[in-house]
Amino acid sequence: MSTKNPRVAVVGATGAVGREMLKVLEQRNFPASEVVPFSSARSAGTKVPYMDNELTVIELKEDSFEGFDIALFSAGGDTSEKFAPLAVKAGCVVIDNSNAWRMDPKIPLVVPEVNPEDLDWHPGIIANPNCSTIQLVVALKPIHDKAKIKRVVVSTYQAVSGSGQKAINELETQVSRLFNGKEVVSDVYPHQIAFNCLPQIDVFLENDYTKEEMKMVNETKKIMGDDSIKLTATTVRVPVFYGHSESVNVETTEKLSAIDCRNLLANFPGITIIDYPEKGHYPMAIDCAGEDDVFVGRIREDDTIDNGLNMWVVADNIRKGAALNTIQIAETLIERGLVRVV
Amino acid sequence: MSTKNPRVAVVGATGAVGREMLKVLEQRNFPASEVVPFSSARSAGTKVPYMDNELTVIELKEDSFEGFDIALFSAGGDTSEKFAPLAVKAGCVVIDNSNAWRMDPKIPLVVPEVNPEDLDWHPGIIANPNCSTIQLVVALKPIHDKAKIKRVVVSTYQAVSGSGQKAINELETQVSRLFNGKEVVSDVYPHQIAFNCLPQIDVFLENDYTKEEMKMVNETKKIMGDDSIKLTATTVRVPVFYGHSESVNVETTEKLSAIDCRNLLANFPGITIIDYPEKGHYPMAIDCAGEDDVFVGRIREDDTIDNGLNMWVVADNIRKGAALNTIQIAETLIERGLVRVV
Repeated sequence: MSTKNPRVAVVGATGAVGREMLKVLEQRNFPASEVVPFSSARSAGTKVPYMDNELTVIELKEDSFEGFDIALFSAGGDTSEKFAPLAVKAGCVVIDNSNAWRMDPKIPLVVPEVNPEDLDWHPGIIANPNCSTIQLVVALKPIHDKAKIKRVVVSTYQAVSGSGQKAINELETQVSRLFNGKEVVSDVYPHQIAFNCLPQIDVFLENDYTKEEMKMVNETKKIMGDDSIKLTATTVRVPVFYGHSESVNVETTEKLSAIDCRNLLANFPGITIIDYPEKGHYPMAIDCAGEDDVFVGRIREDDTIDNGLNMWVVADNIRKGAALNTIQIAETLIERGLVRVV
Repeated sequence: MSTKNPRVAVVGATGAVGREMLKVLEQRNFPASEVVPFSSARSAGTKVPYMDNELTVIELKEDSFEGFDIALFSAGGDTSEKFAPLAVKAGCVVIDNSNAWRMDPKIPLVVPEVNPEDLDWHPGIIANPNCSTIQLVVALKPIHDKAKIKRVVVSTYQAVSGSGQKAINELETQVSRLFNGKEVVSDVYPHQIAFNCLPQIDVFLENDYTKEEMKMVNETKKIMGDDSIKLTATTVRVPVFYGHSESVNVETTEKLSAIDCRNLLANFPGITIIDYPEKGHYPMAIDCAGEDDVFVGRIREDDTIDNGLNMWVVADNIRKGAALNTIQIAETLIERGLVRVV
């Protein structure tokens, strides 16, 4: 009478997010009958750690998805566009970490703490939001439910791991070279990231905002299911390895005191409050790295408007911002009976 | 018929800002008959470079100011509180870089591009504003004059040099130790600054804002001479050596397009516009280090409100944010005939 467990394909298994997905599947005891890592031909054959042994990464091909039930994608938009429909055809539910389907009105964009009900209308693909959006909407959701958000002004402090393993290496190399009096080479980023702040993440669009900034604007509205939420963003890369920080100014329709906001967030799933200014305790990137929750602190009223709040929101961009949220979506699908196991 | 040049005392000459003051006096050919560096007993005897030779730093005493015309202070609030009145008594004009007199209604708080006219009522002491405020008000002034500012939401990305030479050493040491697998010790800052963001600058006040945040709020109103300007700030220390960056959201009474704003700022003294998103050009901390101007870019309309703008403001916090602004005040005093040379 035992229920069969799903077979899980991890696409992009050698990347920073792919490796973290394997780690999260293991840590959370994800009920998989088997986990198989896939990658491009270039990385195929790589060994990746999983449970007590190593898995050999297999080259992704058009017929790779036969016999799988869940496919977790984190291999860039092009791979998702080409292979996700093939995975769906083969009977998989796809949870995609790329930008390919996020704003497609037929595809749900999900953060399980915020809009799990959107999973119910998935057509085979579910999109995982952008890292900077995920941690923001977790913090905004209870505020919106209680006091209706009118406007958000957000400035981000984003870690290099958001750009993958190459960017982690680039920051490391640049710092080493500078400390040895050598010239710095920038490859992943358009400018030196070591000991610098880059007010550009992703490419510039016609309105002079970056794609990352407009992702935050548009994805927030879609996940919260409310187009009336006004949001303006400035997204900035900082020389931090892991953990995105966000300075968030919120204007609500109803008054919400700092104390009420703190209590509200403390009781929301997936949020940990660190807010003891008198002790010098607040969320920091180095502390949240490797953690699952979204950490919120520096909650204080902004008296320049009637109903204003400032807060500081930090999360591990590779975990809650990517790998963990993807696996939480898979877990929620299973809970809701939305995965067909063959 | 030659006018006599003033004798200049530099108090706190061995600190990061004091050394930069000597450099700026030299670079700008400041018309001093003599420049004498002072410090506490602990640092007295140190040699500091000035012009083609070295000056020996003299211990600051109560009677040190006899025969001086201008005293530039950058030795902390306690030294300013004790010694600035003595310098005034001895006939000096004091330009003070500490927090001691900034919000005293009898003392002008001056950024020469913004409110030079406030020098006319100085009672002997002029306060130099906080670094993060100086670069902000330079960028805000032309906008306020043209379109009247209602509200500003600012998040800062502040360099460690703002906390002095010890903090520069701390970031350097922490990075080295981390790269050598050693534990990190934090002394200047309450937490590790290497590869981290600290949402705390200066101490916390009763309203849960930091002193640095409230400096930005209060000093901006005083310098701009307009208490109706509403400003809320989140100030953050980032692992950058030189150059503060600021993400600034502005709401004005009159409509100001991004293009008009760019032209307006480009024609304001002390501002350089770097705003070519299509080429990936915008202000960055590493580029502004050692430069005099306030650099503004990423100017774009914020359509979440009727009259909104976002911009990115960067300046060398040790130069325009401290030493340069102090010397510019001295120059403006001389131009306006407000220094009595004995």
